[in-house]
Amino acid sequence: MFKTIEWKNNSVVMIDQRLLPTEEIYRTLLPTEEIYRTYKDFLDVAEAIREMVVRGAPAIGVAAAMGVALGALQINAKERKGFAKEFEKVCKIMASTRPTAVNLFWAIERMKRVLKQNPKSGADELKQLLVQEAKNIHKQDIEINKRMGRHGSKLIKNKATILTHCNAGALATAGYGTALGVIRAAVEDGKKIKVFADETRPFLQGSRLTAWELMKDGIDTTLITDNMAGYMMKKGLIDVVIVGADRIAANGDTANKIGTYSVAVLAKEHKIPFYVAAPISTIDLKIKNGEKIPIEERDIREVTHIKDIPVAPGGIKVRNPAFDVTPNKFITAIITEKGVSRKSFEKSLKRLYSLTWPSP
Amino acid sequence: MFKTIEWKNNSVVMIDQRLLPTEEIYRTLLPTEEIYRTYKDFLDVAEAIREMVVRGAPAIGVAAAMGVALGALQINAKERKGFAKEFEKVCKIMASTRPTAVNLFWAIERMKRVLKQNPKSGADELKQLLVQEAKNIHKQDIEINKRMGRHGSKLIKNKATILTHCNAGALATAGYGTALGVIRAAVEDGKKIKVFADETRPFLQGSRLTAWELMKDGIDTTLITDNMAGYMMKKGLIDVVIVGADRIAANGDTANKIGTYSVAVLAKEHKIPFYVAAPISTIDLKIKNGEKIPIEERDIREVTHIKDIPVAPGGIKVRNPAFDVTPNKFITAIITEKGVSRKSFEKSLKRLYSLTWPSP
Repeated sequence: MFKTIEWKNNSVVMIDQRLLPTEEIYRTLLPTEEIYRTYKDFLDVAEAIREMVVRGAPAIGVAAAMGVALGALQINAKERKGFAKEFEKVCKIMASTRPTAVNLFWAIERMKRVLKQNPKSGADELKQLLVQEAKNIHKQDIEINKRMGRHGSKLIKNKATILTHCNAGALATAGYGTALGVIRAAVEDGKKIKVFADETRPFLQGSRLTAWELMKDGIDTTLITDNMAGYMMKKGLIDVVIVGADRIAANGDTANKIGTYSVAVLAKEHKIPFYVAAPISTIDLKIKNGEKIPIEERDIREVTHIKDIPVAPGGIKVRNPAFDVTPNKFITAIITEKGVSRKSFEKSLKRLYSLTWPSP
Repeated sequence: MFKTIEWKNNSVVMIDQRLLPTEEIYRTLLPTEEIYRTYKDFLDVAEAIREMVVRGAPAIGVAAAMGVALGALQINAKERKGFAKEFEKVCKIMASTRPTAVNLFWAIERMKRVLKQNPKSGADELKQLLVQEAKNIHKQDIEINKRMGRHGSKLIKNKATILTHCNAGALATAGYGTALGVIRAAVEDGKKIKVFADETRPFLQGSRLTAWELMKDGIDTTLITDNMAGYMMKKGLIDVVIVGADRIAANGDTANKIGTYSVAVLAKEHKIPFYVAAPISTIDLKIKNGEKIPIEERDIREVTHIKDIPVAPGGIKVRNPAFDVTPNKFITAIITEKGVSRKSFEKSLKRLYSLTWPSP
């Protein structure tokens, strides 16, 4: 099994998700070592997050934590005050990489807390503690996903066909996945599950990553273009929708990959349950509703070109919002590692958020 | 201005739409003569329709008529009976190219009628009459589109932003376009119009053709991926949707490019008017409702590859329906060359269909 991200010999190793699926591209173009990239400079980790070498809210969180740890190791200051000042700069750079996934900021906050919780430690000790914390975030993320899977599997009937959008899988997390984690858990529970995967333009996370991941696990997967989801629902081929999330507001409004909102509207029209699977770290109680979630607009080249080949006339105007917000009224339930949140989400999310983990 | 299709020196000349937009691809790869293809054998025209050198229901109709005329010229039989027998074979081959767009069958029927209406003509005379009829179909299609545009423009307010899906433009017809014809007419009427064009996976008719056509006409156009339409609607950026059609059932249910149904559901959710623009020849009164319209499934390579580059893991299961059906309840009105059809469509379409053209 592939590893999305790893801390190894004081560097961050990540699979370059832009190059996947390797089956085709790797064999013709690249040696294995080119697929896994090793980062020794936190600025390169920041760039890797920006350029989507790594993507998916939980994986971005882990990468940011490891990036911050790497940045800490690179600080020369020996005494605490100088270290703390440099460390603040590292965190700021890491926080500027992508705006929508709140896990990024959550992970950086967790790293900052290490300094607060160890007010007497010097630079060297802090470095070790920060590396340890990044490793903990990584390890806990897999555990969180597995717990989420257990909660989510109960919502999935045997012989269900599940539609998913984008990649909320092992590649979007430290491992196992959020939406795909629920699918994996249902399969582990002995259920016969079929999956439809939206290809997810413009970055094609569905065709390149989700289809690849699920095939590797031997899960029955059918790839469709995003605009076929409505057709499949109308034909009665979809029983349930599960997606991940990049940020969930206090009222349950959910930012996720562009196109999620359309899938949610279609699910409602066809009376199909629509589930969001995300760790508690994706919930942003400080944001009241979805309108306040910042939506990243990315380079128009993602739309006008596919792997450097132009598919649109030069000079055309393009919009490229990377996410959209699905209002809570379209969401049946939100699956977290601490349990399943149902309406009213405001109350229920707040309660889950405050539970000590693991939940009783 | 480019020409979609033309009858020239007893051959059919078509712009190869698979190679567009030329701006980019032509300059690097191809001489002009490669963009326009000349067909001297009706079997090659049939193949060109199948392979989507030409596409768009009205253009397919014109290409089929010209293909049939070309096939007629290739018949060696000198007497009428032998000619008619061979002619029947030509029509059958042409009818087998694509199943959904009814204009194909409508055009072939019109060609067959030439034989019925000239019961005494011999092979040579029939050949000339058939070529003339194909030219008439071509010429009338442009006229039809312009009349449709006039009717449709009245529905479009000044400063409207219009969303369109796929390409229902000059490239989908003999010229001017159906949905894009309405847009062109509104612009000619002095209205300030903005257009959002869905890229329309998998064949990218939106990014490759619609964006290209509208840019050439200086119409303010913004390209988006299909899954961004919901986002733009929710932001209040879309005032009206106009699409073309491949077949309209007697009750107004409309088959059009895959993804149209999703756009229609989204338009209803956002209370945005949803118009279909299509010639009377796209209406199939023999088919009671949309469920009876045959939906073509095309090669999965259209989804797994983009211009020969794989974007999905090898061996993945894929669905590739080329069309979907939008039930009449999602359609505000159907714009034809004979006027605008409103609910109940069953009555209204029947009335328009039976009107002598041009309508009084």
